[in-house]
Amino acid sequence: MKVIDKIRKAEEEGRVYWSFEYFPPKTQQGVVNLYDRMERMYRLGPEFIDVTWGAGGLSADLTSEIVSTAQSVYGLETMMHLTCTNMPKEKIDTALKLAKECGCQNILALRGDPPRGKDTWESCEGGFQYAEDLVKYIREQYGDYFGIAVAVGFAGHPEGHVDNPSKEDDLQHLKSKVDAGADIIVTQLFFDIEMFLDFIKRCRAIGITCPILPGILPIQNYNGLKRVISFNNNYVPEHIWKDLELIKDDDAAVKDYGIDLAVTFIKRMLEEGIRGFHIYTFNLERSTRLILERLGYTAPSENVKPLPWNPSLHAKRTKENVRPIFWKNRTKSYIQRTESWDEFPNGRWGDSRSPAFGELDGYGVSLKYPTPECLKMWGNPTCLDDIAMLFARYCKGKLDALPWCAQQLDRETDIIRQRLSAINLLGYLTINSQPAVNGVKSSDLTYGWGPKNGYVFQKAYLEFFVAPEQLDDLIAKISTNPEITYFAVNSNGDLRTNTQSDTPNAVTWGVFPGKEILQPTIVESTAFMAWKDEAFELWQEWARIYEANSESAKLLTDIHDNWYLINIVNNDFQDDAGIWRYFDLEIDGEISRRLRRSSADAAN
Amino acid sequence: MKVIDKIRKAEEEGRVYWSFEYFPPKTQQGVVNLYDRMERMYRLGPEFIDVTWGAGGLSADLTSEIVSTAQSVYGLETMMHLTCTNMPKEKIDTALKLAKECGCQNILALRGDPPRGKDTWESCEGGFQYAEDLVKYIREQYGDYFGIAVAVGFAGHPEGHVDNPSKEDDLQHLKSKVDAGADIIVTQLFFDIEMFLDFIKRCRAIGITCPILPGILPIQNYNGLKRVISFNNNYVPEHIWKDLELIKDDDAAVKDYGIDLAVTFIKRMLEEGIRGFHIYTFNLERSTRLILERLGYTAPSENVKPLPWNPSLHAKRTKENVRPIFWKNRTKSYIQRTESWDEFPNGRWGDSRSPAFGELDGYGVSLKYPTPECLKMWGNPTCLDDIAMLFARYCKGKLDALPWCAQQLDRETDIIRQRLSAINLLGYLTINSQPAVNGVKSSDLTYGWGPKNGYVFQKAYLEFFVAPEQLDDLIAKISTNPEITYFAVNSNGDLRTNTQSDTPNAVTWGVFPGKEILQPTIVESTAFMAWKDEAFELWQEWARIYEANSESAKLLTDIHDNWYLINIVNNDFQDDAGIWRYFDLEIDGEISRRLRRSSADAAN
Repeated sequence: MKVIDKIRKAEEEGRVYWSFEYFPPKTQQGVVNLYDRMERMYRLGPEFIDVTWGAGGLSADLTSEIVSTAQSVYGLETMMHLTCTNMPKEKIDTALKLAKECGCQNILALRGDPPRGKDTWESCEGGFQYAEDLVKYIREQYGDYFGIAVAVGFAGHPEGHVDNPSKEDDLQHLKSKVDAGADIIVTQLFFDIEMFLDFIKRCRAIGITCPILPGILPIQNYNGLKRVISFNNNYVPEHIWKDLELIKDDDAAVKDYGIDLAVTFIKRMLEEGIRGFHIYTFNLERSTRLILERLGYTAPSENVKPLPWNPSLHAKRTKENVRPIFWKNRTKSYIQRTESWDEFPNGRWGDSRSPAFGELDGYGVSLKYPTPECLKMWGNPTCLDDIAMLFARYCKGKLDALPWCAQQLDRETDIIRQRLSAINLLGYLTINSQPAVNGVKSSDLTYGWGPKNGYVFQKAYLEFFVAPEQLDDLIAKISTNPEITYFAVNSNGDLRTNTQSDTPNAVTWGVFPGKEILQPTIVESTAFMAWKDEAFELWQEWARIYEANSESAKLLTDIHDNWYLINIVNNDFQDDAGIWRYFDLEIDGEISRRLRRSSADAAN
Repeated sequence: MKVIDKIRKAEEEGRVYWSFEYFPPKTQQGVVNLYDRMERMYRLGPEFIDVTWGAGGLSADLTSEIVSTAQSVYGLETMMHLTCTNMPKEKIDTALKLAKECGCQNILALRGDPPRGKDTWESCEGGFQYAEDLVKYIREQYGDYFGIAVAVGFAGHPEGHVDNPSKEDDLQHLKSKVDAGADIIVTQLFFDIEMFLDFIKRCRAIGITCPILPGILPIQNYNGLKRVISFNNNYVPEHIWKDLELIKDDDAAVKDYGIDLAVTFIKRMLEEGIRGFHIYTFNLERSTRLILERLGYTAPSENVKPLPWNPSLHAKRTKENVRPIFWKNRTKSYIQRTESWDEFPNGRWGDSRSPAFGELDGYGVSLKYPTPECLKMWGNPTCLDDIAMLFARYCKGKLDALPWCAQQLDRETDIIRQRLSAINLLGYLTINSQPAVNGVKSSDLTYGWGPKNGYVFQKAYLEFFVAPEQLDDLIAKISTNPEITYFAVNSNGDLRTNTQSDTPNAVTWGVFPGKEILQPTIVESTAFMAWKDEAFELWQEWARIYEANSESAKLLTDIHDNWYLINIVNNDFQDDAGIWRYFDLEIDGEISRRLRRSSADAAN
């Protein structure tokens, strides 16, 4: 969707809106961290995010990749920066093509900074000289497909362009870019709010009518600010320097000051009827979150959680509204494995189930963290108890990640955290779960999703690895309850189940005014069989961080070779404790002993 | 589905099963009554029903029509009788073709009674001589498509064939029919249970292995029994005659005796391991129902209500599992108006909505009762209050039918009966409704449907005619509640609604172990616009029972021309009283006055 259309809608509804800017990180781990952050910041409800092109176009491929991932995997409406620097026409074409392929419909067209090692800007061979040319070219090539924003140099900036001290010339230059086809203006950061307000008036006076989003930089630290200011040739009013001078060595105080300042700016703009603002996050989360909290802004609930998972904004996936629960903690892998699908499940899984999930080989299962970090987190387990302890500590929030779950447990699992932790100590190694929910309002902060005035439901779900002999006992127990359905499988693909048909089981659904029942999360056998390859492979990946003949490697390989992965649904969603009755949580004295040991362990 | 497969399944599950036989009534009103009865008796859970061919094949067309309606409209698994009497091959072909077209997969192949006016049987030109030939012919023409039952004359009967006193010959003859392709034997009625048990043994002894269903006749009255016995040349043991002799003038006592006798028979058969029985209903309901109740048999819940409405068993409609709520009281009309559809909604209405409902002209909207009966029921209304009173009395169960509802209100509306009645007196003339249901067990006797161990839900629904000025007030009131959605339309098609999309609203749904959410009943605009033509036309039909210039005709035509039909859904299914808040039921003293008048009226 075009950002301009989203802005128009927000303006019509008279609501405040915001957007976040990110840049491509320098390391692979930085990219992984950025994705985690973007996914979390989705909840803050940005109208869109943008990703910079990187100085001199060096990180161009990475920008395309991040844009594609944000749009397809995390479902964030994304705007891609595109500069003229070092960009011959062919490269521009490639970048635009990639953007369109992933469903991105927004380009921020910039001239860009001078190429690395040069002081003044110069165009490359076969490239463009001005952002205006780039805007025209995009319109020529793609017609109305893209929304185009401009913010070149300081031309969109109240303080005038660095290369061109004439303010009026700058404004005319800006107007030419809008006339060439741009539909939004984003300003660079600024600290003189009255100058910005004056700038807006002058824009309107010469007939620039499109939305102008002020760029807000939450100051993160004193020296960082100095660098940014000098690089961009910004003007910072004297009173701000004076305030900062007093606290410049206290990073926390500077950050808080930055938040205060941003909040003051935004409030002043609201007084003037400016309801949209663009936050330069510098890939950080905290200041942005606190600014929004201080302003009392939560996103319109429709924006934040249209479904229990974040719908992809890839053009091919517009109708996708059902997913198997298995990849809940591995969205990116799910998107990649279903990339070649022509149709996505819409409403019901059965209607448009694609014949095959992509092969594991196609993209490779891997641990999200580099080996040293994994070793630090997981140590050298030598017995099943060591493994169980790691899982239990993860469930208690004492361990950052496991191979299957690179982020902390969802807030929604808080109420089952203790029990999850306990069954792990009994050897049921959990990798996915959700509690039962019996019709809470769709606006519920923990479990809610979807349109207003609805009710949402969940069936209790547990997925874990279990030793074969323990599996026999468990299945004997759960078979007495007709409300329980399960699928269990080992790495060889030997399947055990008590389900009699291969129709999907809806485990999350919602009831909304004037709509059919939405059932966005399901358990289904074909998907489970595709998922188990990945789930088991992660044991191997874990084993590979150790010496091939080490105790740890042997232990993990043994689990991979012999254990089962089982998922259990308690179909009686009105019975929230039902699924836990099969684990002897109360009667086993062993648990207390292990929990004590676990606490002692965690304290170390 | 073939009856033989249903029987095999019941036998495997070790459960008792039963079936009902009906005959084509002699009058059109008799046919209407039979349909009502069949629809009600669906709830008694017969494994199948069969419809006789009528003596001499005179009522052949009607048999085909009843078979088609039972199968397509009421969703009863149907077996069609087919006789050789007066049936040249072409007629047989036509009958089989019609049966196949409506999804009927079961034929009871008979030689038939002698043609009317003849004492002995003779074949017609181009026809078949023996049931065995007919069985062979069906197998030749249709292969395995049809399940074939046989019961010719008394050949399948323990007492030997009337034309052929040799029991052994009869058995061999029966075996030939089975060898020719029959897979079930249904016996004619009998009263000597031990003889029947002996017959079974002799069948098994000569290698007849297929299921043999004993025919049970609940005696309805003494003279009737005498006629049947004489016609079929049946043997009735002396002790039964003696018992009947004492009560023969007391019809009620005879009926009760008939029920006792049937229950005794069935119990005796169960002792011998015979678990299936075939009841000759004589198109009556009460004795059959009481026999099943006395035996403590309720149908397996899956059989009785797989969905809140009875799914059609027409071959084309196998996947249909969603219907608009509007035709709840006019199933037959819905089936007819959607007859030409190539695809039926499956899971969600939106996926396979057909472009058009059949035109009204195609089948004609008509009152279900003949004019004199209508006049008797509805009198000569001359003012709106008269009309409102009729609607209110219908809701209270004091009036048998209205043009929109030819049967009494469902049991599920019991809890809203008073309120329905009251709002009718206020001028909201209700024609359809359902109460809110918030997750009751699928086995619930009143609201339950679908597989075991599930939960079912409903949104409160009301549909009524209302005067334009009253509509304005009502819409102003309900517009304050975002949980209410409505569609209102007049006979010209002027639509008013507060819904913003044309996606369907699921108003009945169920959650079941291991399944997606089933949502079999919806409210949807296209369907509503098709329905309103029919709903308004019924006012005209009603008007037509009066003189063209009478007060009554003018009144009804005025309603047709000017009023609106509105449907209201309270989407908050957890709030069961919500939908009633807009009708001022508590504050209007008028209501009590009218209710008193209504009671006085009903007492007359």
